Amino acid sequence: KIKASGLKLQFCTNETQATREGFVKKLQGMGFDISAAEVTAPAPAACRILKERSLRPHLLVHNDLVPEFAEIDKTNPNCVVIGDAAENFTYANLNEAFRVLIGMEKPVLISLGKGRYYKETDGLKLDVGAYMKALEYACDTQAEVVGKPAKMFFESALAEMGVPPQQAIMIGDDIVNDVGGAQRCGMRALQVRTGKYRPCDENHPHVKPDAYVNNLAEAVDIILQQL
Amino acid sequence: KIKASGLKLQFCTNETQATREGFVKKLQGMGFDISAAEVTAPAPAACRILKERSLRPHLLVHNDLVPEFAEIDKTNPNCVVIGDAAENFTYANLNEAFRVLIGMEKPVLISLGKGRYYKETDGLKLDVGAYMKALEYACDTQAEVVGKPAKMFFESALAEMGVPPQQAIMIGDDIVNDVGGAQRCGMRALQVRTGKYRPCDENHPHVKPDAYVNNLAEAVDIILQQL
Repeated sequence: KIKASGLKLQFCTNETQATREGFVKKLQGMGFDISAAEVTAPAPAACRILKERSLRPHLLVHNDLVPEFAEIDKTNPNCVVIGDAAENFTYANLNEAFRVLIGMEKPVLISLGKGRYYKETDGLKLDVGAYMKALEYACDTQAEVVGKPAKMFFESALAEMGVPPQQAIMIGDDIVNDVGGAQRCGMRALQVRTGKYRPCDENHPHVKPDAYVNNLAEAVDIILQQL
Repeated sequence: KIKASGLKLQFCTNETQATREGFVKKLQGMGFDISAAEVTAPAPAACRILKERSLRPHLLVHNDLVPEFAEIDKTNPNCVVIGDAAENFTYANLNEAFRVLIGMEKPVLISLGKGRYYKETDGLKLDVGAYMKALEYACDTQAEVVGKPAKMFFESALAEMGVPPQQAIMIGDDIVNDVGGAQRCGMRALQVRTGKYRPCDENHPHVKPDAYVNNLAEAVDIILQQL
């Protein structure tokens, strides 16, 4: 419906357990009309930073994400990129990433998100933010976070569409990462009452959405009515 | 020499990869006259806290440390105790400890130290403090740290000897955990220029030892000369 109306559309995800191609394939299977070019994701954003600053990463990421870094020089690393590595978060791999960082005069740690945890069918899992904090503490450094709610991440999504923030609306279920991040970037933001949404979000001390909607379909209908 | 002089002696360690018995055996092998009762260590200190507050721990510790908790009820856990678990710091074990904490109304995390890292023959390793920070962030809570430099830890060593802090001297190689911790407890503290000591410690922004000594033997000789 959004696409048929002529509005521009970009999908912003913090997914780092798969390439955009893998992510898109999953959504296509659910019936979404979506291509990889319409997805703004942390790994490609990190690749841009790595190229701009001539950084050669040591990767601590999920196996399925590695192809996103195919064109990046990874020899003789001078930074660490950490994503939601899941089963790759082993004691040995964490020590190895730590040794790369502590061996640098000024450790450079780039984190593909700062989520605390998430839920899978077999239970809650620690997210990349927890492991980021472990490395930050051990190396006495601060990570550069790529992905929502980083301002630069939303700006790169806007640049993809060629739209200024005042003319864009973010729709998301995460009060801090989706709504708060987009608003700090100058966009309006709707929170859907599905997914990660919790009733207590409506009393959040810092973030207030421009409006609530019951679900994504309702958000789309309301937006189209106002055209 | 200290013992022969009639002075009281207590060994304060942050070792959490072995029981006191295991630790003492190692030192006896090096020629030290030492028994488990003369050792103040984080695990027994944690056991006292667990008993006092009727806490039943989920343990994330080194296999060799588990016997220290033999007498503690560990059924239906209502807190997590984390030590330097080394190879036990697996993705699965960290998620499990996290799930125990996040399932509590007010997560109780007791950490046997807050070291950032240490060196072993095969390289640098992340210490318990890094994993403590990961769980703190994921659960939005703050750990209670047992062991040096916690004031209560030094106080329990003093209680073992029956000596007030003004009459005790700490000798250690760690400017923050040994020297700073003991001084904040009202003791005097010497830093040895061996082990963890680094020349830059002498410019530490917050901690200044009462004196420096070249090694443990020199510290003992100086103390005995002043009797």
